[in-house]
Amino acid sequence: MFSVNAREKFQLEKTKESFTKWYDQILPIADVVDKRYPVKGMPILKPYGFFMHDQIMKLLEDEWAAQQIYKAQFPLLIPEAYLKKEEDHLEGFKAEVFWARGGAGYDETQVGEEKDEYCALRPTSETAMYATFKEWIRSHVDLPLKIHQTCCVYRYETSSTLPLIRAREIHWNEAHTVHATEVEALQNLENAWTSYLKIIEEDLCFTGLRLRRPIWDSFPGGVHTDVMDTVMPSGKVLQTVGAHYLGQKFAKVFEIQFTGESGENETPYMTCYGVSTRLLAAALSLHGDEFGLVLPTKIAMIQIVVVPVMFKKGAESVMQACRDWVAECRRALPGVRVHLDDSKKQPGNKYYFWEMKGVPIRVEIGPKDVEKNQICLVGRTTGKAGKKFVPMSDWISVMQALNDHDGYLRKQAFDFHQANVHSANSLEELGTLIEEGGLVRIPYHTVEVEGKEGDEKIHDLCGGEIRGFVPDEKVENGIKCLVTGKEATCYAYVARAY
Amino acid sequence: MFSVNAREKFQLEKTKESFTKWYDQILPIADVVDKRYPVKGMPILKPYGFFMHDQIMKLLEDEWAAQQIYKAQFPLLIPEAYLKKEEDHLEGFKAEVFWARGGAGYDETQVGEEKDEYCALRPTSETAMYATFKEWIRSHVDLPLKIHQTCCVYRYETSSTLPLIRAREIHWNEAHTVHATEVEALQNLENAWTSYLKIIEEDLCFTGLRLRRPIWDSFPGGVHTDVMDTVMPSGKVLQTVGAHYLGQKFAKVFEIQFTGESGENETPYMTCYGVSTRLLAAALSLHGDEFGLVLPTKIAMIQIVVVPVMFKKGAESVMQACRDWVAECRRALPGVRVHLDDSKKQPGNKYYFWEMKGVPIRVEIGPKDVEKNQICLVGRTTGKAGKKFVPMSDWISVMQALNDHDGYLRKQAFDFHQANVHSANSLEELGTLIEEGGLVRIPYHTVEVEGKEGDEKIHDLCGGEIRGFVPDEKVENGIKCLVTGKEATCYAYVARAY
Repeated sequence: MFSVNAREKFQLEKTKESFTKWYDQILPIADVVDKRYPVKGMPILKPYGFFMHDQIMKLLEDEWAAQQIYKAQFPLLIPEAYLKKEEDHLEGFKAEVFWARGGAGYDETQVGEEKDEYCALRPTSETAMYATFKEWIRSHVDLPLKIHQTCCVYRYETSSTLPLIRAREIHWNEAHTVHATEVEALQNLENAWTSYLKIIEEDLCFTGLRLRRPIWDSFPGGVHTDVMDTVMPSGKVLQTVGAHYLGQKFAKVFEIQFTGESGENETPYMTCYGVSTRLLAAALSLHGDEFGLVLPTKIAMIQIVVVPVMFKKGAESVMQACRDWVAECRRALPGVRVHLDDSKKQPGNKYYFWEMKGVPIRVEIGPKDVEKNQICLVGRTTGKAGKKFVPMSDWISVMQALNDHDGYLRKQAFDFHQANVHSANSLEELGTLIEEGGLVRIPYHTVEVEGKEGDEKIHDLCGGEIRGFVPDEKVENGIKCLVTGKEATCYAYVARAY
Repeated sequence: MFSVNAREKFQLEKTKESFTKWYDQILPIADVVDKRYPVKGMPILKPYGFFMHDQIMKLLEDEWAAQQIYKAQFPLLIPEAYLKKEEDHLEGFKAEVFWARGGAGYDETQVGEEKDEYCALRPTSETAMYATFKEWIRSHVDLPLKIHQTCCVYRYETSSTLPLIRAREIHWNEAHTVHATEVEALQNLENAWTSYLKIIEEDLCFTGLRLRRPIWDSFPGGVHTDVMDTVMPSGKVLQTVGAHYLGQKFAKVFEIQFTGESGENETPYMTCYGVSTRLLAAALSLHGDEFGLVLPTKIAMIQIVVVPVMFKKGAESVMQACRDWVAECRRALPGVRVHLDDSKKQPGNKYYFWEMKGVPIRVEIGPKDVEKNQICLVGRTTGKAGKKFVPMSDWISVMQALNDHDGYLRKQAFDFHQANVHSANSLEELGTLIEEGGLVRIPYHTVEVEGKEGDEKIHDLCGGEIRGFVPDEKVENGIKCLVTGKEATCYAYVARAY
């Protein structure tokens, strides 16, 4: 299982310039994805990689369960008529749709009596769900209705694809909610953000900037879109969360109504939000180093790898001590994922291999350790310098090492984020800063539709685009938009993006 | 969430004759599926129903993890060339394939520069996986390779569809394994059966007959197929497990080879197996009764429902006692799923509603119970007669009630199975027994390809078909085949089937 690739040491610096190459090389070597599958933009998620995405989905599903957002499964195939109901929505997705049909061969050679309509593979599930929500909702006692599903969506990306980041088959979790009032709908979005931030900042140990997208870049058919943009090692940003306030737009189009407490017919307020394998992509990208992956403990298939350091003499007693320690560890720390590497490779090669795989903690046990009833703890991020000998049954130190590992990753990634958010006071400065990478804040005249022209100018100038604004961030009187010279109404954040 | 349907009492006898109607009515009313989705054979799995399927998948994934069968995700889209590699396999599935394409509108109005080939939506994943297994396997140290995935497969069923039983979108879990030796491959299949039987018999509380399919009904491209056939309340059988020994057939076609310990190139032995929502269908069908669903505890979203029995006087103290009990229960019995029904309905209506939903245990708390510091436990299968008053903190009795519930279901379902496996000594008797329902054992000349003609005769005679044989079941010399009069070589099991 773990011997398929990479029998050699991995070494490739991860700098702003080399990041793309690093990402491209490490994912297949570390058994995260296999890109050789012959359908474009649809890599295989290998067990080692899929485990991590699956863990993220489980962490999220626990959050949703606690918020009484219920897990369901809606069909993959969406009738064209559904997709057409919301015009903006269709406009936003139609160029990317995969169409499917059964019952006749694609080349019409196999025509049966029955011949079905083509359906879309869901590019997202609003239209599949909301026609049904109409049936499920009658009165205020049916609200709130909160549903989520973990599934794949399909989008025919024409730009170049990148595993976990831009794919034609997207593994994700999407939530859709319906509320009696706008206040409740907006509060629900805040609750979702609390959960997302918990998973991103506590479990995955990175961060980003929460932004509201300018109106021209909002979710098709929605009222406003809030995202998290995370600065990647390349200096480009990656949208890692998308959360949309839909207002009453979809409810009106899909005729979702409810009888209020007063007996009147009312139109509800809706929200939807989702995260995909991009969370994993960001975590792997930000934490990895020149020797390979570095995994946050919460998503690591193996959190602790035990390597016997054996010589011919005493080999069996060392191996037995390793087996015993693994068994004890599983008893003492239930839920901790520990793996004994009892393969025939040399210890040094095992070290390189598991470093490349990003395992947080390595436990070395040699003949001397057996004698002294101790183990040697080595952190993935502390290396040889951080080696620590502790008694075999010192489980507190083991847990501490795991916690320290996550703490170190979190600090590094938060510092990186801080160091990559800048402000510019002139277009020239904007250009320079964008060239360096990260998010650059500028005073801007408007994020309403009239602001789109300026966004295009910015793009021509520096290759960046307006990613959004922070609603609470106010601009003092008299500050001028860098692009138009008009009175600025907001600060816009500009970045190059994936 | 739980108030959408069925505000009235459900009552419909579940007999052999009325079963189809019962199944058709209870699934939507109990919020298991919504059949109104406008794509044929693709009902929505509603939260209450999907929870149960999801639980079954989780129980299974735990089994596979313990057997070091790793979870992965292969793409939905399979290139036509892959599907064509194994001729029998293609032949077995091609009439059922959904074809999909992106990049151009289905009606060619939207033709881009790039125009992709049509791909199949996976009808099963052998061909998607095995071309890749070829790349993953180099040497004996890469074996065994054991992969599974929980996903959907797509088959254009032309016969009438039935939720959870015969769908065009099938939610399932499939495992695929590669071994150095035949012995190991066959042992792996036995391990899989141990897990399947644990889930079916212990967790889902029903059973069935493990049969080997006759050669003409084996998995397309495999060597032999073992299934579990479960007798449903209608008397027809449902295949609930499919486990296939593939031998070296697929390995040869997909050129999967490995360097053995001796350094020679060898061809490995493969297996694959899967279960779908049919497990849920069988559990719901077998345990349900005239008042609705009756759920095994392991898959019930709500295992215990608490109903306050209130009058105007003392209402608040009863409600508070209920809240306290729920909180205590969650502390005392972590993992037990308990729900307080604090809606405004009358207690009697709540009883009917949760009975219809199949909740295993109801806890009633009224003013007298608060006084006496007791609760009233009512089992879904014991009804009023089995009411039991126990102290509020008697958690042992609560656990006992849950265990008793499962035990009762198991006994009922096992008895039903026993009562529905018969033997026939003449074709006339076969006809009579098949009419009554269940599996009927007959001496038969052969399950090799020459036996197919007799199978067709049986079908013409009584509407049944040969479902398979039990490999260990030997026939004494001199016993004749009921159909051909030739020497019988096996006992064949005949049934009408879904």
